[in-house]
Amino acid sequence: MESDKLDVIFGALADPTRRAILARLASGEVTVNDLAAPFAMSQPAVSKHLKVLERAGLISRGREAQWRPRTLEAEPLKDAAAWLEQYRRFWEQSLDRLEDHLRELQKKVPKP
Amino acid sequence: MESDKLDVIFGALADPTRRAILARLASGEVTVNDLAAPFAMSQPAVSKHLKVLERAGLISRGREAQWRPRTLEAEPLKDAAAWLEQYRRFWEQSLDRLEDHLRELQKKVPKP
Repeated sequence: MESDKLDVIFGALADPTRRAILARLASGEVTVNDLAAPFAMSQPAVSKHLKVLERAGLISRGREAQWRPRTLEAEPLKDAAAWLEQYRRFWEQSLDRLEDHLRELQKKVPKP
Repeated sequence: MESDKLDVIFGALADPTRRAILARLASGEVTVNDLAAPFAMSQPAVSKHLKVLERAGLISRGREAQWRPRTLEAEPLKDAAAWLEQYRRFWEQSLDRLEDHLRELQKKVPKP
């Protein structure tokens, strides 16, 4: 995985509107107008977000140019998940430590 | 998972130096000086990156103030992975589609 690709992917995900757009596209192709509707922002502002998502390879344009539908492309999300996966043992370790701690605390509770 | 927490986490991961710092910390506590050493950048520039990681909860400061060691905190990475996990079926679908496509292509190869 090239590093600058991950920069662009994580950067694209670092915004609530862009994550909401992806969530919306999870249900299928959506036109730009329909994508913009739920957000209290101008069409150019939405277009800017779409451009960021497109540059990250997270959405593509459908063939129906008139309706300008966008489609979710999940491959970059897989790359981001693969990068995070390298750290799984660390978050699982901290869960283990928490469990150990809770067990120790329970031992200290006086029996009735 | 609060949305603005994810903004800060994904934003922190959208930089190669910050991802390299996390990779370095995966081997254990490292002092700020040692963290800065591999990068061709000023100490203040490195400190700025550390602040971004700290704000995202991805690193913490050790108790040994003199050496200012930093430690990896994996919990936010788990949150980011959980968000991405919602989209797993999409990237698995596209792998399935690729496999189907390859199978179709193979069928078309003339038998010797």
